[in-house]
Amino acid sequence: MVVSLLSDPELSPDARAVFDDIRATRKTDFVNNFWRALAHDPVALKRTWESVKQVMGRGVLDPKVKEMIYIAVSVTNGCGYCIASHTAAARQKGVTEAELMELISVIGMANETNSLVTALRVPIDDAFSAAPKS
Amino acid sequence: MVVSLLSDPELSPDARAVFDDIRATRKTDFVNNFWRALAHDPVALKRTWESVKQVMGRGVLDPKVKEMIYIAVSVTNGCGYCIASHTAAARQKGVTEAELMELISVIGMANETNSLVTALRVPIDDAFSAAPKS
Amino acid sequence: MVVSLLSDPELSPDARAVFDDIRATRKTDFVNNFWRALAHDPVALKRTWESVKQVMGRGVLDPKVKEMIYIAVSVTNGCGYCIASHTAAARQKGVTEAELMELISVIGMANETNSLVTALRVPIDDAFSAAPKS
Amino acid sequence: MVVSLLSDPELSPDARAVFDDIRATRKTDFVNNFWRALAHDPVALKRTWESVKQVMGRGVLDPKVKEMIYIAVSVTNGCGYCIASHTAAARQKGVTEAELMELISVIGMANETNSLVTALRVPIDDAFSAAPKS
Amino acid sequence: MVVSLLSDPELSPDARAVFDDIRATRKTDFVNNFWRALAHDPVALKRTWESVKQVMGRGVLDPKVKEMIYIAVSVTNGCGYCIASHTAAARQKGVTEAELMELISVIGMANETNSLVTALRVPIDDAFSAAPKS
Amino acid sequence: MVVSLLSDPELSPDARAVFDDIRATRKTDFVNNFWRALAHDPVALKRTWESVKQVMGRGVLDPKVKEMIYIAVSVTNGCGYCIASHTAAARQKGVTEAELMELISVIGMANETNSLVTALRVPIDDAFSAAPKS
Repeated sequence: MVVSLLSDPELSPDARAVFDDIRATRKTDFVNNFWRALAHDPVALKRTWESVKQVMGRGVLDPKVKEMIYIAVSVTNGCGYCIASHTAAARQKGVTEAELMELISVIGMANETNSLVTALRVPIDDAFSAAPKS
Repeated sequence: MVVSLLSDPELSPDARAVFDDIRATRKTDFVNNFWRALAHDPVALKRTWESVKQVMGRGVLDPKVKEMIYIAVSVTNGCGYCIASHTAAARQKGVTEAELMELISVIGMANETNSLVTALRVPIDDAFSAAPKS
Repeated sequence: MVVSLLSDPELSPDARAVFDDIRATRKTDFVNNFWRALAHDPVALKRTWESVKQVMGRGVLDPKVKEMIYIAVSVTNGCGYCIASHTAAARQKGVTEAELMELISVIGMANETNSLVTALRVPIDDAFSAAPKS
Repeated sequence: MVVSLLSDPELSPDARAVFDDIRATRKTDFVNNFWRALAHDPVALKRTWESVKQVMGRGVLDPKVKEMIYIAVSVTNGCGYCIASHTAAARQKGVTEAELMELISVIGMANETNSLVTALRVPIDDAFSAAPKS
Repeated sequence: MVVSLLSDPELSPDARAVFDDIRATRKTDFVNNFWRALAHDPVALKRTWESVKQVMGRGVLDPKVKEMIYIAVSVTNGCGYCIASHTAAARQKGVTEAELMELISVIGMANETNSLVTALRVPIDDAFSAAPKS
Repeated sequence: MVVSLLSDPELSPDARAVFDDIRATRKTDFVNNFWRALAHDPVALKRTWESVKQVMGRGVLDPKVKEMIYIAVSVTNGCGYCIASHTAAARQKGVTEAELMELISVIGMANETNSLVTALRVPIDDAFSAAPKS
């Protein structure tokens, strides 16, 4: 660990307020270690939580899809904690074991073809290079 | 370019057979540059296409979701060709501009929190560390 | 472990000479595990240590800044050992806890905007594309 | 390009307000392409700008140091646009050519030793594994 | 773990058939954990094994060289399991300790010069930019 | 470009001496752009060239194998210049087109299975976890 994990009594008032909102938003008393480490910097804690809440909250994409996208990024970055926590979150939001295994196949295939494209230095087709009409 | 892009008349019979299946499966005459570069190795071409067809074809995940997962991996790897081609594919399969922009926000947020977790060396919570009952 | 960690009595004479210089340069008897693993290849050990000593030693940048740059690279690569050892080195050179937490925020923000730029395939502005007059 | 670059007359009122703040904060009329691409999603534009402004603004670290950290992350991610734009920003904030070249050496050395550590699977020394007393 | 490791009695008939082929091809009863995790998805298990068998089997490159390439990719991705398993495989196929240490030096040097090239945004020489005559 | 490419008449005496050694070692008058960019920092130029010469020169691995390892790292890092220059170097040292295509397949497969292993968070087998007797 680079920093200790703050328990509830160790939180500053600003960090405590963020934890209260995490608990209210997620409807659970459980606050995972990521937030307990980040709580050493209450300003970063608040900014990060507000951004996560906004991005992962209501929008045009299904929350299950958002969790799968998070996993895809986390696997490609090799972030073990992120994979573990977002796989748990995905399951909690209803992603099935069959969906998880298919997700993993898509991530694997994308990483393979990404490296083939890169190795071959494939030039972008004209059909793909323009931005669409807005 | 590391290798030239093979035009249809330059294809070996084995590569030509794969191109025929790409065209039949995708219901279009257009074959993009990736396959034209990979066609220098017909065995790799056939294996890769069969795998892509299987992974990206029918399954438990929506084809639109699979394209978004592909984009998430490609962005995290920094593969420009892959982003361009799969963004085009996503649009063709019905992903809207609003969905694309939300996808990009989720990818950005995941990359930020991945690096925060990594920098802080956060230990995995007990609640996340066990595999589920199979 | 891929190789064992060599204790002092197991060192070859060439490796021993490098360890002596590490101890003299750092003014401490402690030699961390990285060098004990690399000591299996005394030529690589010597070349790596000479390069690290030159790059991390006196120059135009503050040693504290160099440690923070090291951490930024290590986080982005996801190298846990590197983060742990260079965070310790940064603290030893006087980087404060507040500086470390701000460093982590900058690293997180850079990783987020890097992926947004990559996802959007933003073309480089003319103002940024030329090399300065030398 | 994945999306077009919005010119000033094409901006929505919400995006326009963010551009006004970028111009006021940076004391220049120039708004670079990243923001013109992100402007397709005014909510993401506003959130990202507010975060960048907070993280890169006043704090305990020198603005020049923050730009160098940004470059270190961008190089490790291979983001060409990010390297070009933040190298320009670093120069504008007073980073000298000698500092830039030394920065590049530190980044290179960190990437080399990161991969040596990873290849050797070096276990973390006891001295580095504990969080400091808070 | 994201999923449990399946023991032999827990395998589905389709997964069992793949395990039989792994054992026959490798001439050992030992099946490592990667396949025991992937066995939760017998279709992915079969496709991945068939691809690995084809790519890592007979061809124009020496099997020892293929293992070293695998290690180079795994180190650059930071995949600890992959480094451990392919270092074991390399040793089994006759890669010596001296070759492993030289491999690690080449990987380290490549990662360093890669980042120097990227940081300096070096344009590709005309001599390197064209594909060879096929 | 972040810096200009120095032509021969623009070189400092220290950089000129390194260029002389590059030409003598490689037995060609051609010096590629990487060294012309790095020449802005003669100390880094000399250190990098000496290291590259040592690592890529005589040793226990075939020079062709070393070039392939370089390519594997460069593809995984997505460094276009590095792929282009080392593919050219590999061809010059006798790597055939068939070997290059097989190399690319191995790189692709390694990237795929790396991400599968990472996604599944596979624990290292006991058989792989110990360092060999030295």
